[in-house]
Amino acid sequence: MFAMAHSEPSASKAVDGGLSEEFAVPTHAEDVRKLMAEFAEHHGSAGRRVVLITSGGTKVPLESRTVRFLDNFSSGRRGASSAEYFLDSGYAVIFLHRHRSLYPYTRLYAGVNLLDSLQSESVKEDAGQILVDQNALPNIAKVLKRYQAVKAAGLLLPVEFNTLSEYLHLLKAAAQALSSIGSKAMFYLAAAVSDFYIPAYEMPEHKIQSSNGPLQISMKMVPKMLSPLVKDWAPKAFVISFKLETDPSILLERARRALETYNHQAVVANVLDTRRGYVVVVTKDTQQELVLTDEEVQEEVEIEDRIVSNLTAAHSQFMSQV
Amino acid sequence: MFAMAHSEPSASKAVDGGLSEEFAVPTHAEDVRKLMAEFAEHHGSAGRRVVLITSGGTKVPLESRTVRFLDNFSSGRRGASSAEYFLDSGYAVIFLHRHRSLYPYTRLYAGVNLLDSLQSESVKEDAGQILVDQNALPNIAKVLKRYQAVKAAGLLLPVEFNTLSEYLHLLKAAAQALSSIGSKAMFYLAAAVSDFYIPAYEMPEHKIQSSNGPLQISMKMVPKMLSPLVKDWAPKAFVISFKLETDPSILLERARRALETYNHQAVVANVLDTRRGYVVVVTKDTQQELVLTDEEVQEEVEIEDRIVSNLTAAHSQFMSQV
Repeated sequence: MFAMAHSEPSASKAVDGGLSEEFAVPTHAEDVRKLMAEFAEHHGSAGRRVVLITSGGTKVPLESRTVRFLDNFSSGRRGASSAEYFLDSGYAVIFLHRHRSLYPYTRLYAGVNLLDSLQSESVKEDAGQILVDQNALPNIAKVLKRYQAVKAAGLLLPVEFNTLSEYLHLLKAAAQALSSIGSKAMFYLAAAVSDFYIPAYEMPEHKIQSSNGPLQISMKMVPKMLSPLVKDWAPKAFVISFKLETDPSILLERARRALETYNHQAVVANVLDTRRGYVVVVTKDTQQELVLTDEEVQEEVEIEDRIVSNLTAAHSQFMSQV
Repeated sequence: MFAMAHSEPSASKAVDGGLSEEFAVPTHAEDVRKLMAEFAEHHGSAGRRVVLITSGGTKVPLESRTVRFLDNFSSGRRGASSAEYFLDSGYAVIFLHRHRSLYPYTRLYAGVNLLDSLQSESVKEDAGQILVDQNALPNIAKVLKRYQAVKAAGLLLPVEFNTLSEYLHLLKAAAQALSSIGSKAMFYLAAAVSDFYIPAYEMPEHKIQSSNGPLQISMKMVPKMLSPLVKDWAPKAFVISFKLETDPSILLERARRALETYNHQAVVANVLDTRRGYVVVVTKDTQQELVLTDEEVQEEVEIEDRIVSNLTAAHSQFMSQV
């Protein structure tokens, strides 16, 4: 049985809703904040917009010395793909992603075993060179060129997280880092963040023993970061959240409710089964369906291309109104 | 709140402890069983031993249309690395692994971004060739050669699973497939399998709503497959299980208890923090510590080399006694 210790910490809640009290601050948070602030200032002063993309799921440990954890379905495809379209649109991108989730450009080859993409006949013993099999990695020359150009221009800043706790603190650090560029900052919160967690003080230290019988888990609700982000940390930024449901009948109502609660600019609403071909961009006054036709799907058009077009246009309008 | 429906299925438990009743059979299970049986017969009739390695963690869904799941810490490093040493020792290997967990040989480059390992200056517009940067992929020529030789010889059969349910059924199928080669079969059960699950009939269909408040999860214990595997499915095989704990003080007692309960040949016991440099191989009559010295760690000797040496020798002795 999963025994609960009910001794809550006595310290009073901080401004951030108890974030640093309930979730340990990662040791590198301050270094990462500085890196992100420099990145934002550098690009912001060059007149460039900066988008913070969050991507991938979060890991919620069930034990302090973690063997088991709760996770969220997310390969990070939407975030990684969107990053490419934002870069194509002239944005600089901070890519806050789950360790080992899909990465911009590289994601196109995620299903390929590296060693199956290298040519055996090309291992010339003398020259000692190894060639890429371009049939195994379609468009690799073009993709590589684009990847290297983005890297050389310093337009993509990757930041990794693993646990929910790391995610929350790094998101806060990012919001603070981007506050200096005001409305030029966009938050594109595509990560699948856990709604539930077990506080450190209620967690058993060691691996839960199966010999003790069935498992009872009681999880608290994760504080909603959107609220302090919009109100306190980056009040001038253009903020987009995502809403994924499995039940289409409740989707739009949930999206509207999120907008009312957090008072941010847009919700990208989508249903698990159809998420690659259909989303609704919901704002206070509008509701736009973005749909891929069967033809477009066959031509490998990606819905993220449409989402990013829609939102960069809305961001332009937002900036002009500030 | 996570509501529990208490209507258990009425069908009586099958011989497999209710496996096919509580866990849906994957549609490809029978095809995979045939593939594995052919593989085992082919190599077995050539006098070769066959090891089934399980590797990686299992995913336990919390919802039928799964957004959230429980997972186990496991990169699949131990299984993937062990596969290479078994191949070096002349075994044919069935590699039953979690989708996207580490893979033999390829695992050596898991931390490298593919696009960072290709040389830009080598994209010759005319020739259109792309070269591998061998500094980014140490020993790639040697590793590639070995990978291709193993593949060409048909010595490695990869089989993937994702959920706990898939794992359980594919393990059963593997055990049946290997029964034809008797004591030449080894089971090396290195996967980190969940001890807990939520039966399909107790699972909510849709994504659990966070607006309903904190989450209460109640999980059943997963049936121990080791028992029917040893007793019914592959009674002549050489079977090794793994025991990972975070608390060293209970490790050996748990390993001994597993041996007594399941009556198999060996338990590889290890502690989370030290698992890469220290394990104990526990059998009914013996207890052998395998330890890497600091020097060996620096020389990148892997503990799996020692584990596999130890167990292949024990397997030889086992076969000679049958």
